[in-house]
Amino acid sequence: MDPNFEIRDLEANDYENGFIELLSELTETGNITKEMFLERYNLIQKNKDYIIRVIIDKSTKKVVAAGTLFLERKFIHLCASKGHIEDIVVDKTYRGKHFGQIIVTDLVSISKDKGCYKTVLCCREEITAFYEKCKFTAKEREMVIYHDKK
Amino acid sequence: MDPNFEIRDLEANDYENGFIELLSELTETGNITKEMFLERYNLIQKNKDYIIRVIIDKSTKKVVAAGTLFLERKFIHLCASKGHIEDIVVDKTYRGKHFGQIIVTDLVSISKDKGCYKTVLCCREEITAFYEKCKFTAKEREMVIYHDKK
Repeated sequence: MDPNFEIRDLEANDYENGFIELLSELTETGNITKEMFLERYNLIQKNKDYIIRVIIDKSTKKVVAAGTLFLERKFIHLCASKGHIEDIVVDKTYRGKHFGQIIVTDLVSISKDKGCYKTVLCCREEITAFYEKCKFTAKEREMVIYHDKK
Repeated sequence: MDPNFEIRDLEANDYENGFIELLSELTETGNITKEMFLERYNLIQKNKDYIIRVIIDKSTKKVVAAGTLFLERKFIHLCASKGHIEDIVVDKTYRGKHFGQIIVTDLVSISKDKGCYKTVLCCREEITAFYEKCKFTAKEREMVIYHDKK
């Protein structure tokens, strides 16, 4: 990876480093206050099944890419765990540095190290080719119901 | 629902009521001992984000259908939660009683009650019509990587 950047776990002060602004490139975040951020951050920290990785621009401390892995604890396959990758996002001004692929590969590697029998994610048909480059294979169809707050 | 059956949360003694045998109709479970079952059951009970619903044949106490909902805690959408439905299974000798639809509808309703902004699941293309009857809409493509134990 470009030596001006580093990859690490999400930290509490990444609220100030633009983590929420970055997520807003992915979808609507709403006006998340520091207090709301910390409440969710602390819940996720306590629950060891969430891993959020970020790429930081060392010169500005800004969060320029992020992705989440969470571990689902199942009964099938001898009480195995399944890794779910969610909310992959790269700051649009930092495209072309393979940060998407770096984040995804890092999360897959963590999922494997944590003993997951498989890692899954859902994406738009137009970007399946990107995930195939990350060693994923297209499989099932995602089905969705939106509730009140759509 | 047929009055000879009831729907309720998974209980610790459902190990004896054939819960694992039922899951083995879905996929490989391996030889899960009572001890392994209870360890996973207790972990899931402690983590309030998992809800496993089962349909019981009142005359035999047997678990004849099951499904899991877990709540993913996100930052997006004002720190919203997303419901994931997993491992829906109906005993093949109890087909035709709409137990699949009853379990799925129940889990969707719980997901909504818990405040999730959406509920998702992944299924084979051949059964998307079933989930459309349950009010789901086809959306993204699921991508998968299998690790060591495939």
